Amino acid sequence: MTMVLPLSVATDACCGSVADGGVDVASAEQIARVFKALGDPTRVRLLSLIAGTDAREACICDLTEPVGLSQPTVSHHMKQLVEAGLATREQRGRWAYYRVVDGALAAAAHALLPH
Amino acid sequence: MTMVLPLSVATDACCGSVADGGVDVASAEQIARVFKALGDPTRVRLLSLIAGTDAREACICDLTEPVGLSQPTVSHHMKQLVEAGLATREQRGRWAYYRVVDGALAAAAHALLPH
Repeated sequence: MTMVLPLSVATDACCGSVADGGVDVASAEQIARVFKALGDPTRVRLLSLIAGTDAREACICDLTEPVGLSQPTVSHHMKQLVEAGLATREQRGRWAYYRVVDGALAAAAHALLPH
Repeated sequence: MTMVLPLSVATDACCGSVADGGVDVASAEQIARVFKALGDPTRVRLLSLIAGTDAREACICDLTEPVGLSQPTVSHHMKQLVEAGLATREQRGRWAYYRVVDGALAAAAHALLPH
């Protein structure tokens, strides 16, 4: 079926579209960095868990149990998502809180769709 | 700015959306497999090069020069894209020809957008 999805993205933003051949070397590096971060099932689940909360943010203390991994391992995965620009980290007292960056997933999707 | 993009995708297809928290373990594996294949700048460029041709297909003999890599290396990258379901390979005499799978990039984008 055909859906019409409204997308709020800056059309002049990085990086050309893979779907229409508009990706130069620098853009390919930038696109691949984001997809490399998304190329792990635990990181996909962590992002999905955070994005699915009402507040769209999560304490690391609430992320370890759903993925069944230790806090250092979850912290390591989250660091890769933060470095790729997909999440932000905020320390509040003892715990780190993570948010999905507004527009980051849409921008990654945008790089795969015809412009 | 806000754009409206028409997307032709099967909405009941794999895999839930990362953006709205709907990704279970099996879907995360499937999504991550595709993004892992996209998580390399050479593979992003190869897909973009193929998708950008008029015929939306390319001979491996025409892919080596643009990315500046040997044929075995390009062949190895293309194998990963084929295994992830993003490209198909057809042998014609001496050369392998590759196509981008219709809908595969849109499906990958779909997993990142709210459903």
